[in-house]
Amino acid sequence: MVREDKGFFRLMDGVGVHEVVIESPFHDRILPLMEDNQVEEILLAYRERYLAVREDARIKLIIIFKNHGEAAGTSLDHAHSQLVGTAVVPSTIRKKLEEATRYYDDHGRCVYCDLIQEELASGERIVMDTERFVVLQPFASRFPFESWIIPKTHQASFGLISIDDSKIFAKILKTTLLKLHYKLNDPDYNYIFHTAPIKDEQDDYYHWHLQIIPRLTTLAGFEMGSGIYISRS
Amino acid sequence: MVREDKGFFRLMDGVGVHEVVIESPFHDRILPLMEDNQVEEILLAYRERYLAVREDARIKLIIIFKNHGEAAGTSLDHAHSQLVGTAVVPSTIRKKLEEATRYYDDHGRCVYCDLIQEELASGERIVMDTERFVVLQPFASRFPFESWIIPKTHQASFGLISIDDSKIFAKILKTTLLKLHYKLNDPDYNYIFHTAPIKDEQDDYYHWHLQIIPRLTTLAGFEMGSGIYISRS
Repeated sequence: MVREDKGFFRLMDGVGVHEVVIESPFHDRILPLMEDNQVEEILLAYRERYLAVREDARIKLIIIFKNHGEAAGTSLDHAHSQLVGTAVVPSTIRKKLEEATRYYDDHGRCVYCDLIQEELASGERIVMDTERFVVLQPFASRFPFESWIIPKTHQASFGLISIDDSKIFAKILKTTLLKLHYKLNDPDYNYIFHTAPIKDEQDDYYHWHLQIIPRLTTLAGFEMGSGIYISRS
Repeated sequence: MVREDKGFFRLMDGVGVHEVVIESPFHDRILPLMEDNQVEEILLAYRERYLAVREDARIKLIIIFKNHGEAAGTSLDHAHSQLVGTAVVPSTIRKKLEEATRYYDDHGRCVYCDLIQEELASGERIVMDTERFVVLQPFASRFPFESWIIPKTHQASFGLISIDDSKIFAKILKTTLLKLHYKLNDPDYNYIFHTAPIKDEQDDYYHWHLQIIPRLTTLAGFEMGSGIYISRS
């Protein structure tokens, strides 16, 4: 992995996978306004490409994400999302896994499974509660209107999702984005699948989820310097 | 510190300090174009307020930063910078301290002191090398034109800077910002002082520095989901 070792500074080989999912033949189609079956096709494409890329032994983690609009860092106008396979587990993701593991060690339960139960019991931040998935706005969210879609049954990796659940997820994703679309007037947003590293797909500790982040505010010096997010809507 | 303990979710008391440094009586004055003595006054104000706020026993860490321009998250037009004292050491900062400590444990030297030596020896990323401070663009920087100003003599906390060094630092800061101002046509930028928590001001492991981050690119889904930064200029 280390291409050049100069002692203090090291360069890694540029190994990895980057794929672009073209969501529609039409240039300006917006995901929440697409037909249900088209959103299903997008989700099935994510699943199919995830399962293909995971066969590459060099890839440790697969990140699927979408940038919608300029404030979300879009570099292409045509409706698209992206899949990146990295040859490392980034330290930010490692930290999440470690915290989830620590919670499991302390409590004997997955922190996300507990989170779902606590959120459903409180009811304050639930956007939608369905049979297979729950949509919620996380406690102490980083961004106004940040929304997560989480499978209710424990599942560490998006790579384990069934075809049936992919179609159900597509419907929930579309509905959630549609709510944001109408209420926030087609906001710029990112969504990002958070999923276990490939070798930890059967993990009891982690639990995949989709984070939807409307980009209504700009990260400023305080957020960048502290990692603490000031959320105001 | 914990105001309300509902078991899974906890609310903290809203304890902390937030101060705004008005940099000039003139509304639209830009820091790199100010007179030298005015920039000195700003630095001396940072130092003075740092030393005052550090006396508050509830405050664990002081972050001084500036947001210039809309892409940098400015909420006020009038030339200003900010000081925030937090009642916690944020996990992002804790992680930096831990990594610096690990390096010290392995090598018996401050990682930043070694970084300066390595960068000066290589010479590839040095913007300015002066008697008291070095300005460099870090290896594997997160953002195009990201620049750091680091004191050459080991010093963990900005709170230990002398009045003389504050004035020298002001000159270096102005010159660095002036280079960015002319070459990048008055870019939006943040700068952030990274400094040890108050209780670790005498630390051998950490080394304060200023990070200047021009906001030429937008953080997109990949950066937000992975913590890996794609830097292109």
